[in-house]
Amino acid sequence: MAKRNLTPKSENMSKWYTQVIQQAKLADYSPVKGCMVIRPNGYGIWENIQKSYQTYLDDMDVKNAYFPIFIPMSFLEREADHVEGFAPELAVVTHAGGEELTEKLVVRPTSETIMYDMYSKWVQSHRDLPIKLNQWANVVRWEKRTSFFLRTTEFLWQEAHSAHATKDEAIKTMYQALESYRMIAEDILAIPVVKGRKSESERFAGADVTTTIEAMMPDGKALQSGTSHHLGQNFSKKEAFNISFQDDNDTTQFVWQNSWGLSTRIIGGLIMTHGDDDGVVMPPKVAPTQVMIVPAGNDDKVINKCKEIADSLKKAGIRVTKDLSTKASMGWKLNDAELQGIPITLVLGQRELDQNQISASIRYNQTKETLLLTNLESTILELLETIQKEMFKKAQAKTSELTHEVNSYNELQEIMKSSRGYIKAFWCESEECEKQIKEETKATTRCLPFISTDGEVQEESGTCIKCGKPASHRWLFAQAY
Amino acid sequence: MAKRNLTPKSENMSKWYTQVIQQAKLADYSPVKGCMVIRPNGYGIWENIQKSYQTYLDDMDVKNAYFPIFIPMSFLEREADHVEGFAPELAVVTHAGGEELTEKLVVRPTSETIMYDMYSKWVQSHRDLPIKLNQWANVVRWEKRTSFFLRTTEFLWQEAHSAHATKDEAIKTMYQALESYRMIAEDILAIPVVKGRKSESERFAGADVTTTIEAMMPDGKALQSGTSHHLGQNFSKKEAFNISFQDDNDTTQFVWQNSWGLSTRIIGGLIMTHGDDDGVVMPPKVAPTQVMIVPAGNDDKVINKCKEIADSLKKAGIRVTKDLSTKASMGWKLNDAELQGIPITLVLGQRELDQNQISASIRYNQTKETLLLTNLESTILELLETIQKEMFKKAQAKTSELTHEVNSYNELQEIMKSSRGYIKAFWCESEECEKQIKEETKATTRCLPFISTDGEVQEESGTCIKCGKPASHRWLFAQAY
Repeated sequence: MAKRNLTPKSENMSKWYTQVIQQAKLADYSPVKGCMVIRPNGYGIWENIQKSYQTYLDDMDVKNAYFPIFIPMSFLEREADHVEGFAPELAVVTHAGGEELTEKLVVRPTSETIMYDMYSKWVQSHRDLPIKLNQWANVVRWEKRTSFFLRTTEFLWQEAHSAHATKDEAIKTMYQALESYRMIAEDILAIPVVKGRKSESERFAGADVTTTIEAMMPDGKALQSGTSHHLGQNFSKKEAFNISFQDDNDTTQFVWQNSWGLSTRIIGGLIMTHGDDDGVVMPPKVAPTQVMIVPAGNDDKVINKCKEIADSLKKAGIRVTKDLSTKASMGWKLNDAELQGIPITLVLGQRELDQNQISASIRYNQTKETLLLTNLESTILELLETIQKEMFKKAQAKTSELTHEVNSYNELQEIMKSSRGYIKAFWCESEECEKQIKEETKATTRCLPFISTDGEVQEESGTCIKCGKPASHRWLFAQAY
Repeated sequence: MAKRNLTPKSENMSKWYTQVIQQAKLADYSPVKGCMVIRPNGYGIWENIQKSYQTYLDDMDVKNAYFPIFIPMSFLEREADHVEGFAPELAVVTHAGGEELTEKLVVRPTSETIMYDMYSKWVQSHRDLPIKLNQWANVVRWEKRTSFFLRTTEFLWQEAHSAHATKDEAIKTMYQALESYRMIAEDILAIPVVKGRKSESERFAGADVTTTIEAMMPDGKALQSGTSHHLGQNFSKKEAFNISFQDDNDTTQFVWQNSWGLSTRIIGGLIMTHGDDDGVVMPPKVAPTQVMIVPAGNDDKVINKCKEIADSLKKAGIRVTKDLSTKASMGWKLNDAELQGIPITLVLGQRELDQNQISASIRYNQTKETLLLTNLESTILELLETIQKEMFKKAQAKTSELTHEVNSYNELQEIMKSSRGYIKAFWCESEECEKQIKEETKATTRCLPFISTDGEVQEESGTCIKCGKPASHRWLFAQAY
């Protein structure tokens, strides 16, 4: 029995998801169709993702910059696949400053074209390479059906764009970026992911290769959570943006490019992966508040000790909040901390204080512990580490449970009718079979999984589950979000 | 004689400004009219402003959130002054997802309306107050004449919006926000500012009171650098957004509101205030790179020591870059560090190393010092502090030099024809006189200066320099950017 007016996750995850996001004040519907308002509890998650991912960008020597939100329509058209892929989703500014514009401007759905126009100006010689720029920005893709975080008309993301003198260097960077996404997903968000390569039909519009991290949600559907693309010379060639340089032999060469992006979508994955019937559950590394302190009663000594504990935890680098207000009851505060998924809630009363103790509620497994006030900072730091690890293990176990290897189409169909999940199956790599499988079962190719950080795949010998023709890889199938 | 192809600032600041921004790679023109590209050297400044200002927001207990970039046109119309003020500058999305929109969407020029629609939903009782939200966002105001950072069609800013149960609390918060702007300008950017209240004609569209920080540029023109508004109940009243709550007597009350914003415009002020004939000059607290290390020669021992020094400075929390590449000469590197305005450039050669020394070029006063390698971290930290203070003093002296007190219109006219600058003069506060002074001399009322942090002004007795009628305050006049 749920403690609040929240549809249990175990009963209907989709209903639970929409409700819990609003109740925990992560986001709210906005008056603009398909756009959401990200409230402080939700935006705090994004800020922590940004801070964490920024360290990976720094390690890759990627610099932040900012490019215009508007893109002349003609720019998109310079790369044929790119415009075809994005045309149906564009928002178009036709009037500005009280006049009709001579050239319509698109609100960026992604920034390849506007950035590469500048790259063409900036790159003259091989000494100008590589260029590695990132922007934290909002983008707009007009969507018919939207869902908080998972699919919204406007969303926030980072998009990084690199240009290299050689294909090898670009490919290496693509895998490096993909690995950075695995780290942010697994090490920070505690979401287990599979890294792999997309099929041709699932590739980014304008890319030669799209790699992805895929995450399995508890309802058996997969969430594409970040993609790293190699664009080849599709955008750099003369007819597109003409990004060229003179090599050592004074020959004109076109640069090799990549782009990679990770968005607020992954917050949707975070909520679904870890939440339970009682609300959101935040992994410590990304929780806006890691520790909540609530006093039992209004005794001055207790209140002062709460303040003192909050200060000392803060000094130890812990994101701590104390709720000393008398507007709400202790019960309400504990309930709210639970709903929000704060990893640890500490309650201090006179009794605990007398015994030099404090009681701790651990959110992810709903257990209680009594902690000594002596050296509380290090106890809490350790506990947060443990929670982070355990939450990842728990999510890994769930993903394993939902991962199947099949050798026939029948088996795949059966699984898609029941638990869903990841299905590893031989596929001949023809678009026809891929399309039929999708139409008949909703299962799509999520990726061809990598077995190394530099994109190796398992070569095997089998037959396509759909057409029976020879197939050399087991692909990962799943219904996608 | 300038060392490079850069118009000297002392000769033509406006030309110098446009050139130095491109040469120092702070920003570049974009293919979209009026929009600029902020390059890493410029974006790094903004990131440091964000980090610094975020601490003030935290102190004020303002939380970050994110609201949609699109605003239904009808929303703007709910506050008469607001729509009148912004209508000429709007960019309008008329088509999206391949269809014509039934309601046109405006790309936000500011977010009062979309945010307050949500506030009206969130505020029910006085327990929901105050609300203090901030967003770091891009906004669009269609401009006919644009200039890097100072006036661009799209710009980046923070906009904070608060709602309070009482007018007193709102007014207090307005002054608190204004003080936070003074701190960011003076303590971080080393730009001296005057705090004051705007005249009615210069007030924000929809505000009851607009307060401002104004900065005097070396060319004698003033830059409005941040504004903090009290919106009264203009947006909360029933006919507008109906943001109301039940007070203790169960009477419906409308909230009192503020908004305040600071944008990338201030980077323009930073460049103009501190730059010199040789390039940009960055105050240490906001410099993306505080210390540049350049080796003299390629000796392994020297190179290794450079790396070691860079590591130890980094550990001490200093933003340090080492340029060990052999692609460029030492002269080119030093020249580039000077152009970019890096506060301290360290050069290490074999001779210095043998003497346990390193040579330091101090950017702001173009002096050289020899520093001991022993305890270099603390020497550099101290030096950065000193540079920060001295740069502020230098800018203060320049502002003083450009500040005049006049008692006649003649004097004002003379000053406006020569050095320009701030002019303190009695004004009767009639719109007619204000308009005439502007038309005849280009001098506008910048503000009525405050003499305390809570908005006190100097009451005096005099006569309007324009019409001779009684006037009770000396206003600050200047030509505005």
